[in-house]
This record gives sequence, structure tokens and C-alpha cells, in this order.
Amino acid sequence: MSQKQPLLITTGEPAGIGMDVVLLLAQEGKLQNLNRPIWVIADANAMQARAEQLLATGALKSCPTWQSITVTPSSMTDVNNADFDIANNAFLLLDVPCPAPVQAGYIDTKNAAMVAKQLEIAHQLATNETVAAIVTGPLQKSALIDADIKLLDGTMFSGHTEFFMQQSGCKKVVMMLANQAMKVALVTTHLALRDVPAAITADNVRQTVQIVLDDMQSKFGMASPRILVCGLNPHAGEGGHLGMEEIEIINPVLQEFIAAGVDISEAMPADTLFTTRHLSNCDAVIAMYHDQGLPVLKSHGFGDTVNLTLGLPYIRTSVDHGTALDLAGRGEASATSLYQALIMANEMADKSLTTS
Amino acid sequence: MSQKQPLLITTGEPAGIGMDVVLLLAQEGKLQNLNRPIWVIADANAMQARAEQLLATGALKSCPTWQSITVTPSSMTDVNNADFDIANNAFLLLDVPCPAPVQAGYIDTKNAAMVAKQLEIAHQLATNETVAAIVTGPLQKSALIDADIKLLDGTMFSGHTEFFMQQSGCKKVVMMLANQAMKVALVTTHLALRDVPAAITADNVRQTVQIVLDDMQSKFGMASPRILVCGLNPHAGEGGHLGMEEIEIINPVLQEFIAAGVDISEAMPADTLFTTRHLSNCDAVIAMYHDQGLPVLKSHGFGDTVNLTLGLPYIRTSVDHGTALDLAGRGEASATSLYQALIMANEMADKSLTTS
Repeated sequence: MSQKQPLLITTGEPAGIGMDVVLLLAQEGKLQNLNRPIWVIADANAMQARAEQLLATGALKSCPTWQSITVTPSSMTDVNNADFDIANNAFLLLDVPCPAPVQAGYIDTKNAAMVAKQLEIAHQLATNETVAAIVTGPLQKSALIDADIKLLDGTMFSGHTEFFMQQSGCKKVVMMLANQAMKVALVTTHLALRDVPAAITADNVRQTVQIVLDDMQSKFGMASPRILVCGLNPHAGEGGHLGMEEIEIINPVLQEFIAAGVDISEAMPADTLFTTRHLSNCDAVIAMYHDQGLPVLKSHGFGDTVNLTLGLPYIRTSVDHGTALDLAGRGEASATSLYQALIMANEMADKSLTTS
Repeated sequence: MSQKQPLLITTGEPAGIGMDVVLLLAQEGKLQNLNRPIWVIADANAMQARAEQLLATGALKSCPTWQSITVTPSSMTDVNNADFDIANNAFLLLDVPCPAPVQAGYIDTKNAAMVAKQLEIAHQLATNETVAAIVTGPLQKSALIDADIKLLDGTMFSGHTEFFMQQSGCKKVVMMLANQAMKVALVTTHLALRDVPAAITADNVRQTVQIVLDDMQSKFGMASPRILVCGLNPHAGEGGHLGMEEIEIINPVLQEFIAAGVDISEAMPADTLFTTRHLSNCDAVIAMYHDQGLPVLKSHGFGDTVNLTLGLPYIRTSVDHGTALDLAGRGEASATSLYQALIMANEMADKSLTTS
């Protein structure tokens, strides 16, 4: 029987709740019912110890079973999905050992390299299509910076997205957040508000639209997605009375796509776009900046929100929370966000198969 | 029997749907069940004609009854609520005649002065406390500009808010939008996004907070309102990494209020503030700019949203739609927004009484 390609979870910072939420989902049977092998990168000893901690708190009633293999970037060809006994295990653990002992809640920067190694392995397994998607757990950016972990271009580590982007040789990726209510992609992400207008260039808008369009087709299986785009200014500039960017920059780019037959709007007022009348009739929204799109999205389902990176050569979803060091090993972490990220990755993996 | 003070509706542009929505609410009994006299400023002949038009379309099944008196700014003392037979009339019509014939859907700039006169009368009746609140219907700004209607300071007419502000001698007012889900006040309103950061000054933030605080107490009857405030930047600046305005401008002002015992937050990330956990625990939100606050508010109830002006010496609510010229006289206009604006004005009038 041929199995589907696995979904790969990176548990991230070992002192955080990354392993906790995997174990909680395993106990609930939620990894098993995705109908796809789940692979998990973690330190095998730390995973065992965390399970015992959660058993002691009562959050785990019995220990989930998993199968473990050792994997490093140089032994990548050893990983073979056919060897995974999916019927009797909640997940396949890809053991990447930590150099220093792992203690829930307490970060040791000596383990930062192990976190970076998780991402390298994930990138390789996704690139050679051994896995269908990467689902990333939380890491502690400051720990990687303190440990002097660098990106490929020699700059300081700055996050999952930049890591995968550089490893894949992508010049531009797009952050999309999604929940049951809507999907919102951003032209600019983590910029001070005063720096936003200068970042709204024709190239940036064009590349963002193209990536959203390509990924809605290739990763969400939509032949002709309907995309609505916010203006930069209130009332989308109100014909130039409240700003010229719509007339000078945004609409000319959108008109190129419309002329090419893409089902996309011109710049719309954000406060009318995000109403049922429009949302119910579109597949994705492109907002110009963070606080134009994310407050409205998160207000309709904070716990269910999944973070996606579009534009990578593979599917990557992410939990929407941090390491929550104060909750690690205590049985108090919520696994909702990881579950939603897995469901989204699973759906995308299914849909990208049907179109490829 | 002493009656409560009336709510006063200005019907605005006579060619628009202002009179239509009054008649529709009257037919549904919704003006009568507010438990307060409703006064309506309009041209008496035009109101009669509009009622006949709506009867012909079938939108009105029978003609509502109203009482009519003539009123001008100079005959203001003639208006006496005791003369209004509320039991047998849906509303008291304050007749302000149009110089030119009124035709639904077709604006005649010769009638622009009559629209301005409605606002003058409303201002006077609210200032001398003859009425408890003003509820404004839609006007066509361009018609007043074409007719060369000026504000008190000699500048061109630019909207209801500026009109009432200048008439009342207010230096600053605050726009608030409200629906069942939340109340959102704005520090800046209709500005191009690139002009927003410069407008976030300590004085502007301080005055906005003070006006919101004063009006939540005096007009909403809340002794100690809980107010949450958005930062200007994504993640409220993330400790200065994404902008300095929170540290340098916004938080120092908010700390002044906190030190004075006001129940107000420091600058919060907008994408966590607008979630149930925080919203369910606050009375009003202050957003820094239009598209930070209004998309999320309107996404939770577009048709129910009411526009309020805080900082005036009286209560003023407004419909959230325009003149809808193409719907006037056709029986297709929705009266939901006027009804919500009346309900809000009525609640505020009741609550401001209990605290004054």
C-alpha cells in the first residue's frame, strides 16, 4: 500500500511547548486522523522526558507511541516512509539530538544549533519532495541570535520565513494568515507604519499578487481564484483626495492583471471589503500592511489562525503562537494552533497533488 | 404628562433617501416605540410627495400620520414640544421649505441652502436643550460646495461634523463608530496613510482620550469606562523595533491618564486587541487611524453601524450611508441604519439624563 507523503513538524525550541502540543494531539488521535504520516523532528530523549512530565501532570492519560529514527542532513537518504509503521504509531520521530540537556521552560543557547538543524533538515526533505509540507512549531529568535546562528547570506538569523526563503533562493515570499473566515496576504509585513507607504512600490505589489495567484492555483488547487485588494489609504484614496498611491501605483498594477484575465479587483476601501457581501465572494484578500488586514482576520478566530508562507517551492504552515516557556511541561499548552496548521497543510498537500 | 425631550432627525438632501427612511420607520411603528417624541426637519410638501411616491411603489401600505409646524432659526421659540400630539402622530415635522421643487433622485443646488438651514436649526435646538439629540440623515457634500455654502470660519462646507464643531466652538471632536460588537473612536480620520504618523502627536492623543473619557461618562452614563488603545505600529512597535511612536508619544500620554486613575491600557497590538478576550472586557477602543479600526468594526455588522461625534456639547449620531439618489422614491432604501442611529441616540439621551 502506497502511503501519502508525510507532513513534517519541526518542534522548534526544545524548552518551549513545541513537543507538548505534538504529544497532546497524539493523545487525542488528531495526528492519526489526518490520513497522512506525521513526521516530527525533535530530540528523542527530550520527547520521552516531556511525555513523562505531561503524564505526571495528568494532561497525558497514557503515553502515545511513536517510532524513532536518527537523521542528520548527511543521512537524508536513510529516511524512508515505507519503514514507518503508521498503523501502530502516532508519528515518526526524526531524532536530532540536543548537545545540552533539555529542561522545559529554560532555554540553553547551546541547543540553538539543534533548532537551526531542524530547519535545514525540513528544507531538504521538502525540497526533494520526501515530505508534502513543513509545519513549524515555535522557536525563540533571541536564542538563535545569542548563539550567533547566521542565515545563508551571512546576516543574523531573523526567523523561519527568512531561513526558508534564503535556503530556497527566493527573492520574495508572501505572508498569508488564514482561518475559517478568510485568507489575508500582506504586501508589507513587519514595518513601522511610517515606512509602509515607501514600501508600496509597483514591483512589490506586482510580485505579491503574482505569488498569491500562483500559490492559490498550485497549492490551493484553485484554477481561477477571486482576489480582492485593499487600497493603501482610507476609502482607497477616494479618487485621489486621500492619497495618490491607488491611482499612481496600485491600480495600474492591478489593471495589468485584470487585462491578463485574472479575477482580481482594483484597490477597494478596506472598511467595505471586509464585509460578508464581499468576503463571501472571494478566495483571498491582499492587504497593504499588517494592521489593515490582521486585526479583522484575527477578530474572527484568534485560536484558529494559521500562518502560511507563500512563494516557497514547498508548502509551509506555522503555529500562530510563541514558545510559551511558562507553559512547557505543565500540561497547560493549547494544541489548537498546531492542529489548525496541520489541517491547512494537509488540505493544501491534497489540493496541490490534484493540480500537479 | 411631561414628555421626554425629543430626538431630532435632519433628513438632509431632499433628493436623497433621507425622507424615505423616516417614512418607512414610521410605517413599521419604529419611530413610535422609541418612547420619545421624534421631530423631523424636512420640506412639508416634499415629504407629502415622497409618501405618495412610496405608496405608489407599494413600499408604504398606508400613509403614516404626522403633525407639521413651520420653523425657522428666527422663530425657534415657537417650537414647543407640548403642542405635539404624540399619541396620534408618528413624528412632528418641522417644515423648512425648499426654494426649488424637489424631485427624488435629482439634486438641485438651489435647495442646498435648505440643507444647511436644517443643520443650523438642529444645532440651535440641541444647544438650548429643546431636543435631546441630533440624528443626521445623509447630505450630498458636493451639492453644498457647488452652492458655495460656507462654514462659520469662511472655509468651504466640508461635512456635518465640521459644521457642528464650528457652530459649537469646539476645537476638536472625535469620530466614533459603534455597533453591537464594539465601539471604536479614532485619533485621526480621513488622512492619507502617509500623513498619519505626523498627526499622532501627544496633544492629539491626549485630547482624543479626554473626549472619549468625558463622553463615555456624560453621554453613555459610565462612571469608570474601560478603554483600550491601539499602538500606531504593528505589534504596538514591539519595544521600539517596529517604530518609536508608542514609546515616545502614545504611552507617555496614556501613563498620565493611568496615573490619574483612568481605566485605560497602554498601546496594544491591534491584532490582539480586537479579539473577544479583550473586547469583552472593555467599553471602547481608541484606534490611531481609519483602517486600523473600521474594517474590523464594520466586518462585525455593516448595516448596524452608527457614526457618533464625541466632544460636541450635545449628542449627535448619524446614518452610515449616503444619499443613495438611485433609490430615492423607489421604495428600495433600507431604514436599518437610521433606526440604529435613533436607538443609539435614544439610549445615550436616557443615560446622559441619569448622570446629569
